[in-house]
Amino acid sequence: MELFKALTVLESCREIARHMIIPRRSKTVPLRDSLGYRLFEDTLSADDVPGFNRSTMDGFAVRARDTFGASESLPAYLDIAGEVFMGKDVFGAAGPGKAWRIPTGGMLPQGCDAVVMVEYTEELDQRTIGVTRPVAPGENIVRRGEDISTGELTVARGRVIRPQEMGALAAAGITSVKVEDPLSIAIISTGDEVVDAEKTPGPGQVRDINSYSLFGMAARVGAAPRLCGIIGDDYRRLKEAMESVITESDVIILSGGSSVGTRDVSARVIESLGNPGILFHGISVKPGKPTIGAVVAGKPVFGLPGHPVSAMVVFILMVEPLIRLGRYPDSEDEFLKDFPVTAAITRNLRSAAGREDFVRVSLRHQDGKVLADPVLGKSGLIATMANADGLARIPHSLEGIEAGDMVRIKLI
Amino acid sequence: MELFKALTVLESCREIARHMIIPRRSKTVPLRDSLGYRLFEDTLSADDVPGFNRSTMDGFAVRARDTFGASESLPAYLDIAGEVFMGKDVFGAAGPGKAWRIPTGGMLPQGCDAVVMVEYTEELDQRTIGVTRPVAPGENIVRRGEDISTGELTVARGRVIRPQEMGALAAAGITSVKVEDPLSIAIISTGDEVVDAEKTPGPGQVRDINSYSLFGMAARVGAAPRLCGIIGDDYRRLKEAMESVITESDVIILSGGSSVGTRDVSARVIESLGNPGILFHGISVKPGKPTIGAVVAGKPVFGLPGHPVSAMVVFILMVEPLIRLGRYPDSEDEFLKDFPVTAAITRNLRSAAGREDFVRVSLRHQDGKVLADPVLGKSGLIATMANADGLARIPHSLEGIEAGDMVRIKLI
Repeated sequence: MELFKALTVLESCREIARHMIIPRRSKTVPLRDSLGYRLFEDTLSADDVPGFNRSTMDGFAVRARDTFGASESLPAYLDIAGEVFMGKDVFGAAGPGKAWRIPTGGMLPQGCDAVVMVEYTEELDQRTIGVTRPVAPGENIVRRGEDISTGELTVARGRVIRPQEMGALAAAGITSVKVEDPLSIAIISTGDEVVDAEKTPGPGQVRDINSYSLFGMAARVGAAPRLCGIIGDDYRRLKEAMESVITESDVIILSGGSSVGTRDVSARVIESLGNPGILFHGISVKPGKPTIGAVVAGKPVFGLPGHPVSAMVVFILMVEPLIRLGRYPDSEDEFLKDFPVTAAITRNLRSAAGREDFVRVSLRHQDGKVLADPVLGKSGLIATMANADGLARIPHSLEGIEAGDMVRIKLI
Repeated sequence: MELFKALTVLESCREIARHMIIPRRSKTVPLRDSLGYRLFEDTLSADDVPGFNRSTMDGFAVRARDTFGASESLPAYLDIAGEVFMGKDVFGAAGPGKAWRIPTGGMLPQGCDAVVMVEYTEELDQRTIGVTRPVAPGENIVRRGEDISTGELTVARGRVIRPQEMGALAAAGITSVKVEDPLSIAIISTGDEVVDAEKTPGPGQVRDINSYSLFGMAARVGAAPRLCGIIGDDYRRLKEAMESVITESDVIILSGGSSVGTRDVSARVIESLGNPGILFHGISVKPGKPTIGAVVAGKPVFGLPGHPVSAMVVFILMVEPLIRLGRYPDSEDEFLKDFPVTAAITRNLRSAAGREDFVRVSLRHQDGKVLADPVLGKSGLIATMANADGLARIPHSLEGIEAGDMVRIKLI
């Protein structure tokens, strides 16, 4: 069935990348609603964080040198010059032999460069303390700008905003952020046998699974998915639908068409839409072999297999990176960053040299090791996907793996 | 500072669990919008999936026994009785020596029990094929109900809905789902020094980081967070705020108050609200030691440290499971399920026996191994959190770990 020699997943992605034009649109959102978006531009801090030398302990702010040599038997005696209150400016400046009461988080008086923990002081009277242990300059404080300094890159362009990035941006006073406007992903199910999930299928009919699972996958990685319904294996109707969809979306996903005739309809429609059209028809991956990859007017168009599992796997491999990064990984190493778990497979699995396999696995931990149990069951069954924690990769260089071999796993 | 002996994280969670009453409210959402919710009840399939014996190949539907003994030199000859069309009922029934043209996904005629791939047939004329290889009963087909059968549990109560669960539910015809109404989490920042992130801090003041990072963390795991603003270290004002918040929220998070005085205000307010009140004050964890845990009127109340990193770590350990599961993990094993990555730490790290440490790490892969580099920098700095991929756990039984030791990691 392949019009071209079957490419690997990475080669297929590179083919798409050579022709696609992924738009970079921005929008501005309040920091509070920014979770999961990708930053559109570098964010620089307008201020030092913290804005002052800050105590990390309850104790006394001092000049460190005034405590040098202090010990329990020979304390350093200091005058209590005042008290620091949270969130307040400090009056007076440090001088030889002076100490200020200071709470955790308080601002060090001018000239003080360390804090003595209250545990290492003894109060002799209301005006005098003895320090029983020396402190080094900088001890028990965070210096002005030590967390984030003025003009410093707080969060880099392209980073996905997690809760900690929200925190860092808040610290830098950035409460509205310019983010990349998510890619819009059009999702079309094809096939004369497919009916809406709300309907009761008649003889020979099946419910539309892919619209839901692909919608969920696109939404999970931050895209703006759009369900465009079910279209039968009809050249004219599919072409009409695609023509309207392609002007309104950044990426177009067709799924369905596992039979030769059906795949032909999708392929012919895609070819008719514009250049460069179909780049490959069939990739050396399992599941997901009969995938069509195309670019039309700069927009990636994917013809995913109708099998729900194959469709999800190919979506994970070829559409997810595009949504998450706005581009394809540069290298196998970058591609594999998305497979953070390493585990020992618990069964022998066959593969074919030159083909990359992705095996559904469930994970368990035993004696400090992570074990990946292949999920059994026929490959087309959606239930096997619901029972899986991850996808384990068998690289195309191998003809299989043996129980105990380590595999890289993407959590799904 | 501890009013009680410091508990471990798990012991602390158990203390909270003994007194808390977590509401189970449901709401119904369209399947399309169900991503990330937890199912409120078991979902049973009303139908068989697929609803008919279905071909997984392009070829001919046959009675397997009619092909037994067939070979290239001695093909089994069969009459072409008709053609199966996608999504259509089939007319006629199988009889000895009959075959139907069938596409992948097509419905097998009554009495057929296997499909011969087109590659293993030769068409002699329009009415006759030769089968050159036998098929076993069930070969190249998915049987009716083999994916999901009528009355079968499709997705169990309590499961978080991922894209594959959306697909399985769609397959079973369940297009609106009863899900658990997310817990509402009230988030209050305390401290005289804390100002809104939109403001430029004056001398001694710092911006409110925790409201944003905790809001993000709660939202990420599917809770309904509510920002309740910043309240100074004022007993009356904090008590008023807490009294109103506690009636409207399921879980209450205070953060702030790393100094003794500030913590006292939070503690006194929590104690004043009702029974059983404070259950522990200080846990044996780093960072996050000065955490207050309380239950008031069945609702968990957490007094998190003011340090942004400590607050996030304790949130991850003590609040996240509650949001994700609606309860605390039953065992250390279940607790550790949330730490799916195992990696080799790349530096020696000290800890204290009896204390559990959580170390920010960045991950890299090298020679088939996962390496965890501790993120350096003072522990209170939010920037260290933004540079981290995960939290590595040093169990309380250890006094430290050495470079090369394996650690469990939660991705953050």
